[in-house]
Amino acid sequence: MKKLIAEFFGTFWLVLGGCGSAILAAAYPELGIGFVGVSLAFGLTVLTMAYAIGHISGCHLNPAVSIGLWVGGRFEGKDLLGYIGAQLLGGIAGAATLYLIASGKVGYEVGDFAANGYGEHSPAGYSMLAALITEFVLTFFFLFIILGSTYPKAPAGLAGIAIGLCLTLIHLISIPVTNTSVNPARSTSQALFAGDWALGQLWLFWVAPIAGAILAGVVYKFISTEKE
Amino acid sequence: MKKLIAEFFGTFWLVLGGCGSAILAAAYPELGIGFVGVSLAFGLTVLTMAYAIGHISGCHLNPAVSIGLWVGGRFEGKDLLGYIGAQLLGGIAGAATLYLIASGKVGYEVGDFAANGYGEHSPAGYSMLAALITEFVLTFFFLFIILGSTYPKAPAGLAGIAIGLCLTLIHLISIPVTNTSVNPARSTSQALFAGDWALGQLWLFWVAPIAGAILAGVVYKFISTEKE
Amino acid sequence: MKKLIAEFFGTFWLVLGGCGSAILAAAYPELGIGFVGVSLAFGLTVLTMAYAIGHISGCHLNPAVSIGLWVGGRFEGKDLLGYIGAQLLGGIAGAATLYLIASGKVGYEVGDFAANGYGEHSPAGYSMLAALITEFVLTFFFLFIILGSTYPKAPAGLAGIAIGLCLTLIHLISIPVTNTSVNPARSTSQALFAGDWALGQLWLFWVAPIAGAILAGVVYKFISTEKE
Amino acid sequence: MKKLIAEFFGTFWLVLGGCGSAILAAAYPELGIGFVGVSLAFGLTVLTMAYAIGHISGCHLNPAVSIGLWVGGRFEGKDLLGYIGAQLLGGIAGAATLYLIASGKVGYEVGDFAANGYGEHSPAGYSMLAALITEFVLTFFFLFIILGSTYPKAPAGLAGIAIGLCLTLIHLISIPVTNTSVNPARSTSQALFAGDWALGQLWLFWVAPIAGAILAGVVYKFISTEKE
Repeated sequence: MKKLIAEFFGTFWLVLGGCGSAILAAAYPELGIGFVGVSLAFGLTVLTMAYAIGHISGCHLNPAVSIGLWVGGRFEGKDLLGYIGAQLLGGIAGAATLYLIASGKVGYEVGDFAANGYGEHSPAGYSMLAALITEFVLTFFFLFIILGSTYPKAPAGLAGIAIGLCLTLIHLISIPVTNTSVNPARSTSQALFAGDWALGQLWLFWVAPIAGAILAGVVYKFISTEKE
Repeated sequence: MKKLIAEFFGTFWLVLGGCGSAILAAAYPELGIGFVGVSLAFGLTVLTMAYAIGHISGCHLNPAVSIGLWVGGRFEGKDLLGYIGAQLLGGIAGAATLYLIASGKVGYEVGDFAANGYGEHSPAGYSMLAALITEFVLTFFFLFIILGSTYPKAPAGLAGIAIGLCLTLIHLISIPVTNTSVNPARSTSQALFAGDWALGQLWLFWVAPIAGAILAGVVYKFISTEKE
Repeated sequence: MKKLIAEFFGTFWLVLGGCGSAILAAAYPELGIGFVGVSLAFGLTVLTMAYAIGHISGCHLNPAVSIGLWVGGRFEGKDLLGYIGAQLLGGIAGAATLYLIASGKVGYEVGDFAANGYGEHSPAGYSMLAALITEFVLTFFFLFIILGSTYPKAPAGLAGIAIGLCLTLIHLISIPVTNTSVNPARSTSQALFAGDWALGQLWLFWVAPIAGAILAGVVYKFISTEKE
Repeated sequence: MKKLIAEFFGTFWLVLGGCGSAILAAAYPELGIGFVGVSLAFGLTVLTMAYAIGHISGCHLNPAVSIGLWVGGRFEGKDLLGYIGAQLLGGIAGAATLYLIASGKVGYEVGDFAANGYGEHSPAGYSMLAALITEFVLTFFFLFIILGSTYPKAPAGLAGIAIGLCLTLIHLISIPVTNTSVNPARSTSQALFAGDWALGQLWLFWVAPIAGAILAGVVYKFISTEKE
């Protein structure tokens, strides 16, 4: 239960902090934080929570991460559904809190919130195929780095920095393509508020990240068990 | 006494560095650091002091932090008033030094200094309610991360990075809402220079952060004492 | 074999992440990440991989690094060609994936991709000599810091942060000069897509980085073996 | 001797990287790194060298740092002149290399290089008094954090991160005031190329940083030896 509470608050923070920075601060005139600031914010939600709850739940905050770790043999299948449920609830709670804050400004309209999209809903107009490849490949590397940096031979204690900053890096690359997901809970939390089109495109942000995560689990398991 | 001197200098640094970057460098034409730079600056005041005085006073630099740690059972109540006093004095000394520097430019007017505000004094015009929620929720997570990353099971020595960068993250989200406080000493130090309206709105930047910090103390205590 | 797979994926990531951020996100209107974001992205590819595969292959991701470590006595000559081959293949795979994503936008033309250049192909018009000096000196310092931070007396586990952020620093200095290489595999991967002029200038981005790396190997060996 | 070679290369890197990013990349049209990038670059020169040569020379790279550590009882007086000499030579070598690169662009004029100044030579027009206070106070805190984070009770190995990022923070605050020095070797290296006015104002960038460093040495010694 304790682990699920941790995942709930962690994913709440990921959505509030990451999507919040995008909605509240990215496009502020002249002084706004832009995509660099949003990338930093997403990464820091994970970095900060890694040190706060890593020792409780492992700090997944992301269904694709839980599944990739399970495939890679680092997480027990019996906990999988509970984790994913807590992540979804946490993400939605974060999105609702963000909506409450964002709407405290005269004339606010939710619009696309911070939803993920492709085609005409890609920030820079990238195709569905480009979005699929992007989310697949970036989640593959995200899990590759999670699995590698938490491997027993890696320097203890520093995985939280590597993993958090990996999410920053992923955003630096791909916000223009899909608004960056690599996390079905994050995408779902926003699609519920952005409505129709975002719910219609949501499948891609479950399928591609999870597929990338599964491949990473398989590949890393192969590398780490091979003889030297 | 030694601890109070450390808290004094630490909060001096937080205000001089964080508010100083905002006042002196954020809006410099073309090359200014914007909200990304200010966010980084606030976080780095805490990160740097965490390593310099963490081993002396614990590096709170913030009445809400001291109260949250006390509620969470990590800080003794008898030291509470002394710490808060030292933080207020340090913050005011930092603000006075900053004023001295800032006014060394022809035609300088103090204006709003780096005061926190809501409604018509929110940088982007957010309501009092939005400001209350923002300061409450962000301070809750700030303390949650402080309590978690300094928990005995967390990787030793790295809490300073997580906590400092958490303050960076908090600023990346919320400068447009309230100019970001989560710290009554920081708010007080600026309100004294900004004058009337800032002093009139100062209550919110004591009430909301402290309430958020108390809730985090309660919640984290519950999580960390529950059986696995 | 395991080491070569690691180097392959690592260099794939360096090119996809570093060059990808430049091509996909740097010049996005208003919110683009600019050279600061690209610098951060390149550095974070190395930082993240250092923790993920440092314990497998040493995480070189760069022929100049492998050669500098060999000269400095930290890497066996018999592995040199295998590493360089894996780095080149990984870099090309990263570039191909990036091309696939980038071309998923109506009207995309590959242009210069993220190729390195000098003279009329230097982003800000720097001469061939300036490019030679820049790539030579920066790779010298890159290897100097790699050799120093992985020396047995340096704090264990933190070299990945120092080395990754060193690559960030190198980009902060020199993108306007050569688009920053210090890595023949990165340069080759891009030149293959950018075509004629880039292939014609590619020699410089093999010669200068490798020469700088060799000098660093010699100098650091001298310093570290001298009596105190 | 080994220590002096290390200080030479370290200060070379500080000037080449910090001042180089300012001269070559800060004001690049649209994509330039601005003061945020320059701040990051200065800090990363110290962070990277801290891990590379900290175990050789302590990585001072700055006469004010050497003097402050000496006053604080952490550095032997007999090495002081040698260190300062090596720092000056390294800084000048870095500046000469930077000049060589920068002048490899048609129509380059050295202008103010990256010299420090006050009054009409302050980037934003701050007075001599404001410059004095700024350099004094910021160097005081720089040394305070160096002394604190390298104190035996501080977490081992992390001082390099705290100290490097402290220099980033200092630049985030004060580039508009004095172009930020806190380092007489850095100021001297630039004044030699910028010429007349910069040499005339150079005294301030020796006096104020050294005075601030001395005060920090005294204060920290007092704090750390006082009973708890």
